[in-house]
Amino acid sequence: MADRIEPRVLKGFRDFLPEQEGRRKAVQTILEQEFRRHGFLPIDTPILEYTDVLLGKGGGETDKQIYRFEDNGGRDVSMRFDLTVPFARYMALHRNELYLPFKRFHIAKVFRGENTQRGRYREFTQCDFDIVGVDAASADFEILLLMVRSLQALGVREFQVHLSHRGIFNRFLTSLGIAEQSVELLRTVDKIKKIGNDAVRAELGTLVGPDAAQKVMAFVTADGSAEEVLGTLIGLAGDEPVDTGRLAAVLEAASAVGIMDHVRLDPSITRGLDYYTGIVFETFLTRLPEIGSVCSGGRYNDLASLYTKEHLPGVGSSIGLDRLLAALEELDDTAVVAQSVDVLVVSFTDEDMGANHALAEVLRARGLAVEVYPEAKKLGVQFAFAEKKGIPVAVICGPEERAAGTVNVKDLTTRTNHDGLSVDRAAETIASILGR
Amino acid sequence: MADRIEPRVLKGFRDFLPEQEGRRKAVQTILEQEFRRHGFLPIDTPILEYTDVLLGKGGGETDKQIYRFEDNGGRDVSMRFDLTVPFARYMALHRNELYLPFKRFHIAKVFRGENTQRGRYREFTQCDFDIVGVDAASADFEILLLMVRSLQALGVREFQVHLSHRGIFNRFLTSLGIAEQSVELLRTVDKIKKIGNDAVRAELGTLVGPDAAQKVMAFVTADGSAEEVLGTLIGLAGDEPVDTGRLAAVLEAASAVGIMDHVRLDPSITRGLDYYTGIVFETFLTRLPEIGSVCSGGRYNDLASLYTKEHLPGVGSSIGLDRLLAALEELDDTAVVAQSVDVLVVSFTDEDMGANHALAEVLRARGLAVEVYPEAKKLGVQFAFAEKKGIPVAVICGPEERAAGTVNVKDLTTRTNHDGLSVDRAAETIASILGR
Repeated sequence: MADRIEPRVLKGFRDFLPEQEGRRKAVQTILEQEFRRHGFLPIDTPILEYTDVLLGKGGGETDKQIYRFEDNGGRDVSMRFDLTVPFARYMALHRNELYLPFKRFHIAKVFRGENTQRGRYREFTQCDFDIVGVDAASADFEILLLMVRSLQALGVREFQVHLSHRGIFNRFLTSLGIAEQSVELLRTVDKIKKIGNDAVRAELGTLVGPDAAQKVMAFVTADGSAEEVLGTLIGLAGDEPVDTGRLAAVLEAASAVGIMDHVRLDPSITRGLDYYTGIVFETFLTRLPEIGSVCSGGRYNDLASLYTKEHLPGVGSSIGLDRLLAALEELDDTAVVAQSVDVLVVSFTDEDMGANHALAEVLRARGLAVEVYPEAKKLGVQFAFAEKKGIPVAVICGPEERAAGTVNVKDLTTRTNHDGLSVDRAAETIASILGR
Repeated sequence: MADRIEPRVLKGFRDFLPEQEGRRKAVQTILEQEFRRHGFLPIDTPILEYTDVLLGKGGGETDKQIYRFEDNGGRDVSMRFDLTVPFARYMALHRNELYLPFKRFHIAKVFRGENTQRGRYREFTQCDFDIVGVDAASADFEILLLMVRSLQALGVREFQVHLSHRGIFNRFLTSLGIAEQSVELLRTVDKIKKIGNDAVRAELGTLVGPDAAQKVMAFVTADGSAEEVLGTLIGLAGDEPVDTGRLAAVLEAASAVGIMDHVRLDPSITRGLDYYTGIVFETFLTRLPEIGSVCSGGRYNDLASLYTKEHLPGVGSSIGLDRLLAALEELDDTAVVAQSVDVLVVSFTDEDMGANHALAEVLRARGLAVEVYPEAKKLGVQFAFAEKKGIPVAVICGPEERAAGTVNVKDLTTRTNHDGLSVDRAAETIASILGR
């Protein structure tokens, strides 16, 4: 084969080596367990969908970020760019097979032809969890609780979920007579953590004049304990069961469950998206604020209005798995470790192949992950292989040991030998080396 | 929103409801555990690749089965149609970051625009495991062992891995002077399970004449114990360490490990693909032979010759997860059960919301998957919800119980009540209802 193809991947796409993929899988497993413990169940949807289903009828304008093409059957198709739109389509299509409130999680790849310069990927993994079909403080709180428990389960200790409520802010804007500019106002306030108070105040001033800007700033920068901040908001916007009352109930439940250390009422959180109508969340890592929110979400009025007339309110949140993994690596967190192989069974002769595999099976039955070196190479080669693959223990059963019915165990980390052991004793010794 | 989009999925693509997705995930988890126990580690590759990387330079001819398009950057890209080609590209690209022998598994979606009439899907999940960089009987055996252990781990009891060796057959064809027709002969013999001996004999006759056809049939229909069949093959083709010797070593290891009940030497197995050069495997379920092989593979000479001059021999196998899941459902197997929710905490008033969530957290800390009903609806509505979601136990803590510091546990399957329990006793009672 003279005419070789250069092995390469597309810009913005990635291979995952075993160590990286092991960590990704470990994070996913921990999150899935946490979701299930809270009654959320998994779903899946296709990676490819009809373009109008993903983009709506206005999808005719070319969106550069979408991987869109005509398939061999002449259909206008696109690769999903998030998990929210397919979920809305899913709820509309399967409404009669599902019950409400419906709690699902979905961990899957999405695709966006984004500018890759800022360390962004074109294929990345999202992890969404939502409760659909109910508009109640309990559901809002459950999403908040799951955000907290998910990060705790991953070993993250220093983080805060910042929350606010769109409804209070909207009422306040109405009372100031500037509700019509709410979209621009929300977008401007949303930049507060990036560009700072002064810059936002100036921008607000050009939008609504200095007086209103001053009042908006008083609202979004309200500070203190959750109780104090809520008091300030009620003072500015008035008290309404539907929004300040809802916030108070969520905060009360957070106290009852004991997670207030990780919760901060922060009226500067608005989530730029028009989509949200109630409570909104963003999550920041105390030691890595610069990476932005690792888990965000909120309450929306009507999930699937594009596809069905049924009114489906909901609340949910999304973890950007790639950003979170990068953060965990930077925090040098130890809760997430790629599972590796425990034991290498060394090969002496090609004839003892069957016996080595039988020995490996006995060790596996004792809960160990065991690999048999497939060729009778020099011991040094086999130990070097174990080191490269990160296998901490070797089991050696040469002709003498086999005749005596014993094995030798070698701790490859400390280079300590434990010779002449029965298989039972060997398994115990390995467990103790592995710290199990 | 008057102008709604019809919620629909593309032909050949599927949504997965929680019960289905739960089963898929359960199967994947069991397989992953089994792979890891044998020293295989996970990798991942992009869903989208350069078309020439996937199809080679001859990929210019339109292959109707491939999802191929030009991306927004003008690149000729395609969605992967299997996991083998991306793995070859991966090995060539990352050779210096990896060690040999390299053992990986990869469970992921692939895409083919196939005819959907025969119950085939255009998006489906493959599960591949391979050992690359070694040509040894031990590696051949390990793939065989893992095929057996994977199916056993999934609770399948009645199955047989049929194996054979391409090299013996090729030598035999050479000795008959008909090696030049080997591709057609392999394809014809490969149909033996579908069209039967007589039809295959007739087809072979037109290819190489009745005498040679008779001899080929004697080879491929050799029957009896593995020892007897191997004896027949050696009688017909002669004994060579590289192929009959290799088979004998693999069978010997299978005896040593005790899996010969699931292994059958079957010279009619050829695997149509040119790709394979040594041992080949197919796996049939005894009670569902008509669905064909659920796990197939074999040894290949040179994995990545399209991308690198380095010679990378390997052996591997692939499970078609969708076909296997359908089979498990038909076999009514109980080993694979979608994980569900254990307990519903019933809501009495909106005011006890925080207390209900705190109670749920206490039960979760005892290892239970617990859901809080988010609104204080009628008890009948909440129990009906539990039934629809398959939640077997309800925990009820009304105002009286809360004042007394007790809870009531209701077994929703038998409609038995256990009232006035401490939380500790409640957790024990729930565990006993769940049979844990």
